Amino acid sequence: LKKDNTGYDLRDLFVGSEGTLGIITAASLKLFPRPAETNVALAALPTLEDVATLFRLAESRGAQSLTAFEFMSGFTLELVTRHVPGTRLPLKETAPWYVLVELSSSEETVAETAMQRLFAEASEKHIVSDVVIGGSLAQAQALWKLRESASEAQRSEGGSIKHDVSVPVARIPEFIAAAGEAAERVCHGARPVVFGHFGDGNVHYNVTQPPGVDKAAYLALWNDMASAVHDVVASFSGSISAEHGIGQMKRSELFRFKSPIEIALMRKIKAALDPNGILNPGKVL
Amino acid sequence: LKKDNTGYDLRDLFVGSEGTLGIITAASLKLFPRPAETNVALAALPTLEDVATLFRLAESRGAQSLTAFEFMSGFTLELVTRHVPGTRLPLKETAPWYVLVELSSSEETVAETAMQRLFAEASEKHIVSDVVIGGSLAQAQALWKLRESASEAQRSEGGSIKHDVSVPVARIPEFIAAAGEAAERVCHGARPVVFGHFGDGNVHYNVTQPPGVDKAAYLALWNDMASAVHDVVASFSGSISAEHGIGQMKRSELFRFKSPIEIALMRKIKAALDPNGILNPGKVL
Repeated sequence: LKKDNTGYDLRDLFVGSEGTLGIITAASLKLFPRPAETNVALAALPTLEDVATLFRLAESRGAQSLTAFEFMSGFTLELVTRHVPGTRLPLKETAPWYVLVELSSSEETVAETAMQRLFAEASEKHIVSDVVIGGSLAQAQALWKLRESASEAQRSEGGSIKHDVSVPVARIPEFIAAAGEAAERVCHGARPVVFGHFGDGNVHYNVTQPPGVDKAAYLALWNDMASAVHDVVASFSGSISAEHGIGQMKRSELFRFKSPIEIALMRKIKAALDPNGILNPGKVL
Repeated sequence: LKKDNTGYDLRDLFVGSEGTLGIITAASLKLFPRPAETNVALAALPTLEDVATLFRLAESRGAQSLTAFEFMSGFTLELVTRHVPGTRLPLKETAPWYVLVELSSSEETVAETAMQRLFAEASEKHIVSDVVIGGSLAQAQALWKLRESASEAQRSEGGSIKHDVSVPVARIPEFIAAAGEAAERVCHGARPVVFGHFGDGNVHYNVTQPPGVDKAAYLALWNDMASAVHDVVASFSGSISAEHGIGQMKRSELFRFKSPIEIALMRKIKAALDPNGILNPGKVL
């Protein structure tokens, strides 16, 4: 059912409760018509403010057909092309930031035309320094592989302290600048590997160890680094867990950032639905 | 924040709780770019199955730009043009069903072109008998007024027993046939005024009294009529309140259709968050 206003929204209470309120035994999936065409482009941009400008342009010009807007720092793509076999930079020069844009349409050629128009306008405004538009399916897949290899590439570069955070979209550039300073204070020379779902405000802010440092010694900084990055997130009214949830690892951080009233409401709901505390004990709360 | 997975979804628990769990004192609104163009059409169709076919066509062809797909029975539009000043049927002949389609686009002329293509295809498939596409803003407003006057028009036709229900979209035609038989069994000659948001499966199934019958005597049938229509809704796995909520009027119906486990979970949540029962007492539960 697409519309149902009969009593409390039990479904969304259970979604994201990580098994602490009950066990989900069935789910209905909403299906969408398969697009007739998808078109993918990879663009190089001088600054994060340019990324934000391109996003607003894509949102207003590509509008409802904008199905992906992924961003990556220059260092992220450098690690991908260095460590992941079969990948290469499809642009003439490296750049501080890259964006992968996907437009979809229910009619042939509409997405491709919209993509060309989007980047014609972006070029006129001097917000992109270079762009490649994937003409074939193989080219589109090669562009997506660059983005999807970010985590794998990072593994080959030593220890990494990972954060899955979100902030209001418009504040991503400020957040990344402030988080960079915070990370540097915790560990001089640590290298942020920044990528994520720009349109969701969702940044995978992963901090890779400085070269040559002992991996275990670096990973011992996990709590200090996470605490510093999460403080920056909170100062931008962000979330310390955009998609991955709380589990056991972020429990103490949850208590640090949720208001006492929110924690109290969550505890009351947990006690009401699981009075014996037998459902996934020790998680979330 | 567009993404936040930190603990229980308290927001959606409070949304739709009708003041029984707490008082909402602030809300954030998500804004969308204003479309560069909207285009509105009113189509006449021989059967409800044709309405369903046109909806699937509009969903796949108009895709993400489909911003309204409202349906009305022939009798609904007959009452509008009979009772509401300044309205008239903008088509050559009356029809059993009408659909108001709105397409929006982020570029000029895209919505209009898509609308013309949609109805060219619908005509080829013989699912629409006539269509008018609103060229000017004034024409578009006149078409919307026909749909938005449905409730007002009904008031001039005597007593009306109203239902705000939803069923899976694909089952709307079957539901309306079965509900019509159920309404006739409760009151011979009662006249269903059927309209709603087809794409949401949301039917405002309002049953107007037979002509010449005493209004109060007809309205005394309210519980019998509602019970009969809701039984049909339940047999299609639908909702007895798609958008209006439970309040006091549908409390007993809620208990008839929710499972004992759902009622028990809702009562536990209510008791946990409002132990003294001071929040909007007597509503929902």
